[in-house]
Amino acid sequence: MGDDMAQPIDFYFDFSSPYGYFASAKIDEIAHRHGRNVVWRPILLGAVFKITGQRPLPSIPLKGSYTNHDLVRTARLFGLPFKLPTKFPIAGQAPSRAYYWLADRDAALARNVVQALYRAYFAEDRDISNPEVTANVAAKLGINREELLQALNDPAVKERLRGEVDSAIERGVFGSPYVVIDGEPFWGADRLDQIERWLATGGW
Amino acid sequence: MGDDMAQPIDFYFDFSSPYGYFASAKIDEIAHRHGRNVVWRPILLGAVFKITGQRPLPSIPLKGSYTNHDLVRTARLFGLPFKLPTKFPIAGQAPSRAYYWLADRDAALARNVVQALYRAYFAEDRDISNPEVTANVAAKLGINREELLQALNDPAVKERLRGEVDSAIERGVFGSPYVVIDGEPFWGADRLDQIERWLATGGW
Repeated sequence: MGDDMAQPIDFYFDFSSPYGYFASAKIDEIAHRHGRNVVWRPILLGAVFKITGQRPLPSIPLKGSYTNHDLVRTARLFGLPFKLPTKFPIAGQAPSRAYYWLADRDAALARNVVQALYRAYFAEDRDISNPEVTANVAAKLGINREELLQALNDPAVKERLRGEVDSAIERGVFGSPYVVIDGEPFWGADRLDQIERWLATGGW
Repeated sequence: MGDDMAQPIDFYFDFSSPYGYFASAKIDEIAHRHGRNVVWRPILLGAVFKITGQRPLPSIPLKGSYTNHDLVRTARLFGLPFKLPTKFPIAGQAPSRAYYWLADRDAALARNVVQALYRAYFAEDRDISNPEVTANVAAKLGINREELLQALNDPAVKERLRGEVDSAIERGVFGSPYVVIDGEPFWGADRLDQIERWLATGGW
């Protein structure tokens, strides 16, 4: 294994997760401050919730209205544009497949596309579960629209996403964002401070 | 109303909530730094979960084992002794009633009793749902054991707790710890930093 400190950290997120959106704006910056890279891994919380029996936050009595309030407040704290989308949650297949298809060829471009997709959904209320919308967002970053639309239906790309989701579940990932540092798991955008502290100190 | 800054903040917690235990060790100190007092309000999450359909964290697949790990890690971060109790969760009626009975007579003593009860449960694995155990813990702080045991069965004390739980639910409290500052709600021990920031700045 060599020097553990050089291992990249894993960042799991769902395209329907506002807290994943918030974390995506910070995670690379935090990791880089401590000499780490980040592997971004979109997953599908719908598949996870089938196992855990959880429901999307806004649908839970009492907790739902708190969450809606907390999202707006957290977005302000993070300095990010945010508006609860009209359609929420959404299926993350199209944007997630787009990511994995791109990531194998250009990891930096792929995460720029993630951030553009997240902003389209959570700041501009565009329904990125629609493959056409995902393709339009990606096209603005120079990606060939038709090639991407074909990739979204490619059995190999579909299988890639399924495999990532299965591996995540096997690893215990149950929410978004979910970060793993040298085997140590952190769940939630409100754990970014602990993530930074763990990276700085090697644990406590 | 006068000066809003002088209003006490509300601290809701369940005696079965480890994150409530963690927060109880910090909340007064945080509030006092900003010239605020805290009203402590034990509640019964069982009654809340009937409405929200939530389950105790450790019983949820995937999330449960993360939680068990996170509790130990958070206790280390907070510098508090912690051991997941053999019996968990427990019914909080006995310690909660003890608190409200005492709080009306001596608020400072009542919160010392809360901290002793929390430590008995989360550090020494003593089952404080048992009225005898709650009475033994309180007796160490000079409270008359027999008088307390009688109070735990006093219809007025029972009604007091029911009323507090109902008011909390009406207010939207769905978890523990749950803090309200001038109407602004914060859920979770991982929001203590935001609570401090809100108190310091008046919001963002």
